Amino acid sequence: MSIIVVGSTAFDDIETPKGKRDRIIGGSCIYFSLAACFRSNPRIVSVVGKDFSKNFFKELNKKGIDTSGLLVKDGKTFSWGGKYKSISEDPETKFTNLNVFENFLPIIPTSYKLKNKIVFLANIDPDLQNKVLDSLDSKKFIGMDTMNFWINSKRKSLDRAFERINLLTINELELGLITKKKSLEKSLEYIFNRYPIKFLVVKKGSSGSLLATRNSLNWIPCYPFAKMIDPTGAGDSFAGGLFSFLNNVNSFDKKNILLGMIYGSAIASFTIESFGTNKIFNLSKKEIDNRYKLLKKIAKII
Amino acid sequence: MSIIVVGSTAFDDIETPKGKRDRIIGGSCIYFSLAACFRSNPRIVSVVGKDFSKNFFKELNKKGIDTSGLLVKDGKTFSWGGKYKSISEDPETKFTNLNVFENFLPIIPTSYKLKNKIVFLANIDPDLQNKVLDSLDSKKFIGMDTMNFWINSKRKSLDRAFERINLLTINELELGLITKKKSLEKSLEYIFNRYPIKFLVVKKGSSGSLLATRNSLNWIPCYPFAKMIDPTGAGDSFAGGLFSFLNNVNSFDKKNILLGMIYGSAIASFTIESFGTNKIFNLSKKEIDNRYKLLKKIAKII
Repeated sequence: MSIIVVGSTAFDDIETPKGKRDRIIGGSCIYFSLAACFRSNPRIVSVVGKDFSKNFFKELNKKGIDTSGLLVKDGKTFSWGGKYKSISEDPETKFTNLNVFENFLPIIPTSYKLKNKIVFLANIDPDLQNKVLDSLDSKKFIGMDTMNFWINSKRKSLDRAFERINLLTINELELGLITKKKSLEKSLEYIFNRYPIKFLVVKKGSSGSLLATRNSLNWIPCYPFAKMIDPTGAGDSFAGGLFSFLNNVNSFDKKNILLGMIYGSAIASFTIESFGTNKIFNLSKKEIDNRYKLLKKIAKII
Repeated sequence: MSIIVVGSTAFDDIETPKGKRDRIIGGSCIYFSLAACFRSNPRIVSVVGKDFSKNFFKELNKKGIDTSGLLVKDGKTFSWGGKYKSISEDPETKFTNLNVFENFLPIIPTSYKLKNKIVFLANIDPDLQNKVLDSLDSKKFIGMDTMNFWINSKRKSLDRAFERINLLTINELELGLITKKKSLEKSLEYIFNRYPIKFLVVKKGSSGSLLATRNSLNWIPCYPFAKMIDPTGAGDSFAGGLFSFLNNVNSFDKKNILLGMIYGSAIASFTIESFGTNKIFNLSKKEIDNRYKLLKKIAKII
């Protein structure tokens, strides 16, 4: 079975306290699919410009990632520059050049429509996320991510998407921006009173992540031994791990989502150990499984 | 059964992003015993000056806290001033006036020597911690805390104490100072190779806490809904909760220590919700038990 992921493909300029890299390949659907390819065949819906290397497509294909929906358009690839003052804080955006993304209309290729039950809408313009949602049948399990920029600028469109998804992954700061509540307690109340979202995954960086449902709350630790170099892509890798885990279970219930979060947490712990996709690109299934097993032990206390 | 706690009693000047308080009662053994009094009769070994209110002694006694070892000496009470720039960071010390603490010799009253199996050496000069250790029989379960000041200035004395304790509570930054290792993995290796400490509790602030033993690692979440006002005393309250929990179990094994850490985490989540001891002073057993139960649910994922 496979997972469809709709998101950005990008060139990133990244500066962290550990160093600086220019024009490295990134983007939400790249991190997601590199994380998801160990337990699924991710199918990318995205766009790049003519300046993007075709070789990279081949590298993705070798990993079982389908790039039929990764369009090449006239123009330049989306690019983003960010600086992390401290490694645990959100980055300061230096520039965002939408380029070919500006007129991107995500279309799911017919070949993608078979044998998939999961769709992940990575962080892009909620208008585009809604376009994808319009084209999906209601039987899919749909996950979604977003960011402060869209929360502040396209709230109505975001609300429309929230009406139609099953699982939202979001960081603590963004959650506060959506709900305008200072306490987590009130924020959760707000979300579950207002939207039919069943599972809310709150990402807390090095503090791990929370899974909230209408009547439960659970905490997943993050891998405590990771050597943090560059946090970029951690959230998308986490989601890629989580959804590829769900791709192999029979029901999307709380227990499986929690196990999937541990698996996602294990993969994300590798992502942050290098700039860009370096580490996650060269990862083995065994390395991931070892951290997954250790994290399960760390998490099991009673 | 009761617990002996050796530590400081203080007047604190505290500034956090949420406000400022001058000359409020604090000190490690005060926070510890206020947290521990719900499940034990804490016995304080400490010292104050003539400027300290006798009424406060009576308030402690009403809560089942024994103050026979809380000496009143000529002079002023130990005082400390600290400023938290952000609520998740360690405070900047504005001043430390040792006052009567300068010539303090901790002596455990004969009346304390009966019916106790647990001793906690809160953060004070390791020379004093060693003096207490010299006077104890080997059957006690001994916990200990320390801080960067002593790690940098009295390392040899600290090493001598580490040789003789069962459980060390320490924050992540202090652990790095002791081991001079950058990674948690190497730090744990260092501690367990060098000292006979059986249980190492690494406090990670709002990220929860870790319990490390020679061959295991577990992560305890912190209460995610706490409204942070002033972090002062969180670590000592956490320890008070943990050790008072242990006071009521038959064996000091990993499982009980993990449950005790959850209990300690529940109490510490109240401590940080007011300046000084305000909240913890007026707490009910039921409030604590509710958060303890909720935290157990949050922590139980598999």
